[in-house]
Amino acid sequence: MCQNHTNGSANCAAPATSPTFYEDRYDPRKVSLHPEFRVLQPGDAALDDPKANLTCAYTPQHEVLMVNKPVPTARPGEAIVHVKATGICGSDVHFWKHGHIGPMVVTDINGAGHESAGEVIAIGQGVTNVAVGDRVAIEAGVPCGEADCYYCRIGRYNACPRVVFFSTPPYHGTLTRYHAHPAAWLHKLPDNVSFEEGSVCEPLAVALAGIDRAGLKLGDEVLICGAGPIGLVSLLAARACGAAPIVITDLFQSRLDFAKTLVPNVRTVKIEKCWTPEQTAEKVKAAAATPGCAGVNEGGLRLALECTGVESSIRTAIHSMRFGGKVFVIGVGGDEQSYPFGLVGAREIDLQYQYRYAEQYPKAIRLVSEGLINLKPLVTHRFPLNKAVQAFQVAADPTQGAIKVQIQD
Amino acid sequence: MCQNHTNGSANCAAPATSPTFYEDRYDPRKVSLHPEFRVLQPGDAALDDPKANLTCAYTPQHEVLMVNKPVPTARPGEAIVHVKATGICGSDVHFWKHGHIGPMVVTDINGAGHESAGEVIAIGQGVTNVAVGDRVAIEAGVPCGEADCYYCRIGRYNACPRVVFFSTPPYHGTLTRYHAHPAAWLHKLPDNVSFEEGSVCEPLAVALAGIDRAGLKLGDEVLICGAGPIGLVSLLAARACGAAPIVITDLFQSRLDFAKTLVPNVRTVKIEKCWTPEQTAEKVKAAAATPGCAGVNEGGLRLALECTGVESSIRTAIHSMRFGGKVFVIGVGGDEQSYPFGLVGAREIDLQYQYRYAEQYPKAIRLVSEGLINLKPLVTHRFPLNKAVQAFQVAADPTQGAIKVQIQD
Amino acid sequence: MCQNHTNGSANCAAPATSPTFYEDRYDPRKVSLHPEFRVLQPGDAALDDPKANLTCAYTPQHEVLMVNKPVPTARPGEAIVHVKATGICGSDVHFWKHGHIGPMVVTDINGAGHESAGEVIAIGQGVTNVAVGDRVAIEAGVPCGEADCYYCRIGRYNACPRVVFFSTPPYHGTLTRYHAHPAAWLHKLPDNVSFEEGSVCEPLAVALAGIDRAGLKLGDEVLICGAGPIGLVSLLAARACGAAPIVITDLFQSRLDFAKTLVPNVRTVKIEKCWTPEQTAEKVKAAAATPGCAGVNEGGLRLALECTGVESSIRTAIHSMRFGGKVFVIGVGGDEQSYPFGLVGAREIDLQYQYRYAEQYPKAIRLVSEGLINLKPLVTHRFPLNKAVQAFQVAADPTQGAIKVQIQD
Amino acid sequence: MCQNHTNGSANCAAPATSPTFYEDRYDPRKVSLHPEFRVLQPGDAALDDPKANLTCAYTPQHEVLMVNKPVPTARPGEAIVHVKATGICGSDVHFWKHGHIGPMVVTDINGAGHESAGEVIAIGQGVTNVAVGDRVAIEAGVPCGEADCYYCRIGRYNACPRVVFFSTPPYHGTLTRYHAHPAAWLHKLPDNVSFEEGSVCEPLAVALAGIDRAGLKLGDEVLICGAGPIGLVSLLAARACGAAPIVITDLFQSRLDFAKTLVPNVRTVKIEKCWTPEQTAEKVKAAAATPGCAGVNEGGLRLALECTGVESSIRTAIHSMRFGGKVFVIGVGGDEQSYPFGLVGAREIDLQYQYRYAEQYPKAIRLVSEGLINLKPLVTHRFPLNKAVQAFQVAADPTQGAIKVQIQD
Repeated sequence: MCQNHTNGSANCAAPATSPTFYEDRYDPRKVSLHPEFRVLQPGDAALDDPKANLTCAYTPQHEVLMVNKPVPTARPGEAIVHVKATGICGSDVHFWKHGHIGPMVVTDINGAGHESAGEVIAIGQGVTNVAVGDRVAIEAGVPCGEADCYYCRIGRYNACPRVVFFSTPPYHGTLTRYHAHPAAWLHKLPDNVSFEEGSVCEPLAVALAGIDRAGLKLGDEVLICGAGPIGLVSLLAARACGAAPIVITDLFQSRLDFAKTLVPNVRTVKIEKCWTPEQTAEKVKAAAATPGCAGVNEGGLRLALECTGVESSIRTAIHSMRFGGKVFVIGVGGDEQSYPFGLVGAREIDLQYQYRYAEQYPKAIRLVSEGLINLKPLVTHRFPLNKAVQAFQVAADPTQGAIKVQIQD
Repeated sequence: MCQNHTNGSANCAAPATSPTFYEDRYDPRKVSLHPEFRVLQPGDAALDDPKANLTCAYTPQHEVLMVNKPVPTARPGEAIVHVKATGICGSDVHFWKHGHIGPMVVTDINGAGHESAGEVIAIGQGVTNVAVGDRVAIEAGVPCGEADCYYCRIGRYNACPRVVFFSTPPYHGTLTRYHAHPAAWLHKLPDNVSFEEGSVCEPLAVALAGIDRAGLKLGDEVLICGAGPIGLVSLLAARACGAAPIVITDLFQSRLDFAKTLVPNVRTVKIEKCWTPEQTAEKVKAAAATPGCAGVNEGGLRLALECTGVESSIRTAIHSMRFGGKVFVIGVGGDEQSYPFGLVGAREIDLQYQYRYAEQYPKAIRLVSEGLINLKPLVTHRFPLNKAVQAFQVAADPTQGAIKVQIQD
Repeated sequence: MCQNHTNGSANCAAPATSPTFYEDRYDPRKVSLHPEFRVLQPGDAALDDPKANLTCAYTPQHEVLMVNKPVPTARPGEAIVHVKATGICGSDVHFWKHGHIGPMVVTDINGAGHESAGEVIAIGQGVTNVAVGDRVAIEAGVPCGEADCYYCRIGRYNACPRVVFFSTPPYHGTLTRYHAHPAAWLHKLPDNVSFEEGSVCEPLAVALAGIDRAGLKLGDEVLICGAGPIGLVSLLAARACGAAPIVITDLFQSRLDFAKTLVPNVRTVKIEKCWTPEQTAEKVKAAAATPGCAGVNEGGLRLALECTGVESSIRTAIHSMRFGGKVFVIGVGGDEQSYPFGLVGAREIDLQYQYRYAEQYPKAIRLVSEGLINLKPLVTHRFPLNKAVQAFQVAADPTQGAIKVQIQD
Repeated sequence: MCQNHTNGSANCAAPATSPTFYEDRYDPRKVSLHPEFRVLQPGDAALDDPKANLTCAYTPQHEVLMVNKPVPTARPGEAIVHVKATGICGSDVHFWKHGHIGPMVVTDINGAGHESAGEVIAIGQGVTNVAVGDRVAIEAGVPCGEADCYYCRIGRYNACPRVVFFSTPPYHGTLTRYHAHPAAWLHKLPDNVSFEEGSVCEPLAVALAGIDRAGLKLGDEVLICGAGPIGLVSLLAARACGAAPIVITDLFQSRLDFAKTLVPNVRTVKIEKCWTPEQTAEKVKAAAATPGCAGVNEGGLRLALECTGVESSIRTAIHSMRFGGKVFVIGVGGDEQSYPFGLVGAREIDLQYQYRYAEQYPKAIRLVSEGLINLKPLVTHRFPLNKAVQAFQVAADPTQGAIKVQIQD
C-alpha cells in the first residue's frame, strides 16, 4: 500500500487506518509542537471562543487542564466531527490520577475522552457512509484492518496490536470540540437517539461485548457485581437480554436504590465489609430464590457479570454459581489475585474476561433506538466544554454520587 | 428395576416414568373398558356434577364429545391434579378434524388437551417436590428417563422414543377434571402466575425451545412468520430475548394489529396472496430498515422464526436473510417441500427445526413471574369444563378470531 | 483513503485490496487490449518460451485455449509469483463447458485456475511478509478488507461483496506463469510441504471450512456423500478431525476403492441407481454399525458432509441421520430441490451449507506439514504448462478416473 | 416410584440407580458387617482361591490391603461382572496415602479401583443390553437418573449430587473379582478392544470430556502440561482430534521421551525448576513455531490442556496463550491458587475446568476400536489380583517410571 505519506503529497497520505496516519495530530509529542497548541489558563479568552478547538487533557504531573488545539481538516477517508457529548470514563480519571493503566503511560499532555457523539461538519475525499449534518457516535478504537493482522481478519479487532484508541496514550482523545475520525468508524444515530445516548453507547458496548461472549441466554439467573456505571449498564443490557431473575450487589445502598429505578424488580444485596465471600454468596442465592418457583434450586446462579474487578467480589461471584456456571469479569482489578481453584474445578465454573469490544456499536444503537435499553437515566451530571475540568472533579469524587458525568457542547 | 408390575402389589408398580405405567388409565383402549367410563350425551347429569371426572375427547369418527372417566388415585411417585385451566392447541383440533398427525392416529375415543395447569389435591408415596394445595403447571410429555435411553441421558428428552405425551394417541390428555401425573413433571407456579398463564406456558415452551436452539442473540434482527398463537408467543419471547427490530408477517391485518398490542414497535407486513416470496422478502427487509440506523444494510435479517410451516412462508424467510442468516422452523407443514437450494448454499443460510421441547418449563414460569413475558392477553376466550365442546368449535372456526381458547374449571 | 490511483503516481496506487486495483491486468476486457496479449495457436513459439507468461483460459464460445499475457511487475503491497503448480477445479471445467456458474458469466477470454502455489520472484514496496525465493500457496479470493464491509469486519470474508476471486469472471485466474498477488494473501509453505500439496490446499480449505462450521467433533459418526475430489479431501480432513466411524458413498466402486487407500478403515457404500434415498440410508446405517460397539444405535449418524449437491444424495443424507443430526452440504447442485420437510422437522435435523472459505489456509498448511493430512495421493495426473489444454481435457473426461489434475511449471 | 425396598420382597427393590440400592454391599460400614468379609493377611488361602471375591482396599490408617468380600448375586437391572483388568488411578493412591480428596474422606476399609473392564457372568431380571459372556467396560460413576435431578435431566450427569462413584468413599470400588453393576452403565467392547484397553477408557473418558468442553478444533495449536497418565492420554486424544502442532511439558525427560513414542512429532519442553512461568512459556512458544509456517505468530497458542493442577504450570499455560486463548484445567491441584488476573483479562484468556465426565464411554470405545487412539502402550506394569498391594506400591513410587499399572485377573 501507499507508504510514502511523508512525501508531502496532498493526495497520497497513509491509509486512514494506519497508526502513522494519526501521528501528526494525535500523538501528544507532535501535536504539542504545533503553533496553535497551548495550555489554557483559567480566564483565557479561548475558553469562551465557540470556534476554538478546546480540549481537556491530563498530564504526567497528574493535572487535568484545558488546551487549545488546531482545528483539523478532513483528509481522505476522514470526517470532522463537532463533538456534542462526551462521558467521563473511570479510565480517564485513572490516567489523570495515576498516570498509567497497565503498560499505557501518560508521558505528555494527553487529551482525554473516548465516549463521544457529535455532528459531522466536513468529510474528506472518498467518504460515502456519512454526510455533513449527520449525527454520529464515535467508535474510539480504530483497528488497523490490514490483511496481515490476524485479529482484524478474524473479526476480533479489539485485539489488534496496532489499534489507535483515542485518549489512551499516545493518542489524544475525543473530549475536544473538533475531532477528525476515519469515517468508517462513525455510526449514524437514528433521530430518536440523542447525542447524550450516543455517547453512553461506549460503556454499553463494553457490557454488550461481555454479555455476547458470556453467552447470556433468555431466562438465565444472573448476578451483577457492582452498581457503578459498568454494572448499571450491564444491568440494563442483561435485562434486555432476558436475564431473570437478576441480583445486583454493591457496598452502597444508594447505588442499589438507583439500580432499582432502572429495573424495578432487580434483587439487591448490600454487601457488608465484614462478610466473607461465602457469606455474601449465600445472601445472593437467597435473593435469587423465588418462593414456589423453579430455578436457583440447583445450588446457585448460572452467570455472574463481575463489574468491579475486586478479588473479594470475584470470589463472591464464584461461590454464588451452580455447577457449570460462569463468572464473566468485565471489571478491571489487581494484577495478581487469589482464587478458590479447588471449588471452580469441582463445580466446572468457567472464568472469562472482556477486553474492550468489537462490532458492538451498531447493535448498541439499535437497542437504544428500539427502546430495549434506556440509557437516559445514567447521565446524572452535565457540564459545558469549557467547564470540563470541573466535570472531572465531580467524576472523581465518590461523595457526589455521579453515575455518568458528561461534557456537552 | 422393579418389573413385575402385573403382580397386583399395591406397593410395587412399574416406575412412574414407564409407558406401561400409564396403560391402565391413559390408554383409550383400556380406559374405555372401565365401568365408570361412558360418553355423555348433552343433558347428562354428570355434566353438572362438580365431582365427576369430565373429559373432552375426540374420536376416530371426527367427533369431539364429553366423557366420564373414573377419578384416579395417586400411585407412588404420582400426584393428582385438579386441572384448572387448559388451552386448546392446533394439534387438538387437527386430531379431531383429521384423525392423525404424522404417524400418530386416533383409533379410539381419545382425551384431548396438553396445555394445562391446576392444583395438587393428592400425592402418592414418596412424592416430595409438590404438596397438596400447590398450584402447578403440567408438563404433558413424560420421557422414560432410563439410563439406556440415549436422548434422556444427553438431555434432549423431547426425542425419547418411549415418551408418553398426553393427548397424543394412544394416551388420554389433560383436558379433564382430575389428572394423575408423575410428580416430578409438575412445575410449581409462583403466587403471581395464574393457572391461565401456567397453561399458556406450554406453547411458550415450544417457542422458548426454538429460540434457545436458534441461538437468538441480543440485538438480532428477527423475522417472525405468522401471527397465530405460536407466532405471537414467539414474538413475546423474541422481544424478551432482545430481538431488535422484529418484523412479523401474516395474511390477516387483524392478527398483525393484535401483535402490535403485544409489542407496540413490532413492524408488520401484511402479505398479499399474489406476492412471490421474493416480493414479500423485499417488504420484510424494507420494514426492518431504520433510517439512519445500522443493521439490515448487510442484505437481510439475521434470523427468521418461521411459525407456519407453509412452503411459501419458509421461502419468504429464506429470501429475507442475509449471508449467514438462519431460518428456524417452529411451524409444522407439508411433508414434502421445495426450496431454493442454490440460494441457501450461496448465502450459507442455516435451516433448523424444532420438535416439542425439553427443559423449558422452569424457564417459562420464571420469565412470566419476573414480568418479562406477559401471556395474559393471549387468552381471548374462556369456557367452563362442561362446555368444552363449544370451546373446540370456537377454536376451530377462524372467523371467531380466537388466539387462545381455554377451558377453565 | 488514497483514491486517485489514476494519476499515474508510481507510489500512489489504489490499495492492493481494492477491486479497481485489479482491473488493468485481471479484467479480461482490459487485459485483452494489451499489445502483448494474444491467443496462441498450437505450435506458436511462445508456448516453448520459458519466459513467456503463458495462461490457460476459457472463452464464451466454450473453448479452452492458451494465451500470452504481459509479465506483471510488482506494485506496492504486491508480490509476483512464479506459479509452479495449479490444480483444475470442477468449477474451471464448468465455466469452460457451460459458460457460467450462478450469476457469474464468462463474457470474454478468461484465465482459468485458482488452486495454485509457486515461488515469489519479486515484491513491491512495503511488502514484508514474504521475500524473493519464498515458496507460497496463493489464496485466490481476495476480500476488500475495508472497515465499511460488514463481512470483512466480522471475519466472514468469504461473503465480502467486493471480493476478487481469481478465475471467476471478470478476473483472470492463476493458471499462468507469472501472477501478481497482494502479498498478504500469500501463505508461506514450510520446507516439508511441496508446491503440489500447496496447490491442493485450496480444495482442502473448502473441506476445512465446512468441517469447521459443521462442528464435527471427535468421535462423531460421519457420512461423506461422494468420493470425488471434494469428498476425498473431506474424508481426509474428517479423519484428521477424529470422525469415527466414517461411511463414504459413491456410484463408482473405483472411487470407493481409492477412498480406502486413503483411509483404510473407511466404510463404503456403492449406491445403485435403483435405490431410493431411504434404501441407501439403510445401507449407510448398516455400514456404520459395529458389532458390540455403542453408537449408531440411536437411529442414525450424527453428521453428513454432502459433497455432491445432488438432490437424491442430500435426501439420502437426511434419512441417514439420527434425531438432532446435521446434513452439511459442501457440494453445489440444482437451484431448486425438494426435501422431506416433515422428516427433518420431526427429527430436528439441521441443514447447513458452505460458500468458499475464510481463514483456512494457515490451518490447511499446518495440518499438511504436521502430517495429519496427506494430500499427495490426490494428484493423479500432471501436465506441463504448455500442455494445459490437454490437462483440461483429462479433467473433463470421467473415463480417465482422474482425481486431481495438475499443471506444473 | 417403588420406595418400599426394605419390605423384603425379592421383586421389589429400590431402583438400581438409587444410592440406597447400593448401601448393603458397597457401603463399607455395612459390607464389613457381613460374615464373609474379612481382611486377608499375607499367606491367607483365600488369596489363592480363584472363586474368592478378593478386593483391594485402603484404610483410614493409610494402609492398602486385601480383603475377602461376599460374592454378589444379580438383582433386577444389574449384571455381575468378573473384573478382568483394573488400572490404578492417582486418586486411588491419594486416598490410600492421604485419606481424603476434598470433602470425600476414608472412614472405613474402602475398596479401591474405578478403571475396570471385565466379563458379564450373570444378569438380573429385566436386563437386555448385556448378556452373559459379553465383554464390557464399567462406567464407575452411576448417576441417579431421576426426573427431579436437574443435572441428570440436562445431560451433565457428572454433577449429579446423588452419584454413586465406586471407590470414592463411602462406596467400595471395582478392584475386586466380582462386581455387581447396573447393567445400563456397562459398555460392550468390540472384539478388537481388549479388557486392558477397556480399562484405560476411564482416564481416556476424562481427557475426552475435557477436550469436548474445551472445544479443541482441528488444527488448533495445543499445549499439554504434564506427561503423566492424564497428560499422555490427553496427548493421544488431542492428536486424534487434529491438534497441530502439540507441545508437551514435563519436569522429567523420560516422560517426554515416552510421549514421543506415542506421538512422534509432538514437541517437548523439559521444564527446569529454576524457570519462571514466563520463561517456560517462551520455550513453549518457541517449540510451537514452525519456520515458514503460519500460526503461533499471533503471540501464543490457542489452547492448553493443563494436566497437573500445579499453580506454576497453570501460570505457564496462561503465559503461553495468545489473545482469546483458553487454559483448560483437567488436573487437580491446591485449593487456593494465585493467578495473573491482569494478564488473563487483557488477553481474554478463558479458564475452564473439568470434573469427571458424562457420556464419554461410547465415544472412547469407538475411537479405540476404530484405531484413532492406541491405548496399549500406556499400560506399563501388570499384576495378578492377589498381588494388588504390590501393584499399588509400584504405582506410588515415582522412581519406577510407571505410566499405568494394571491388576489383571
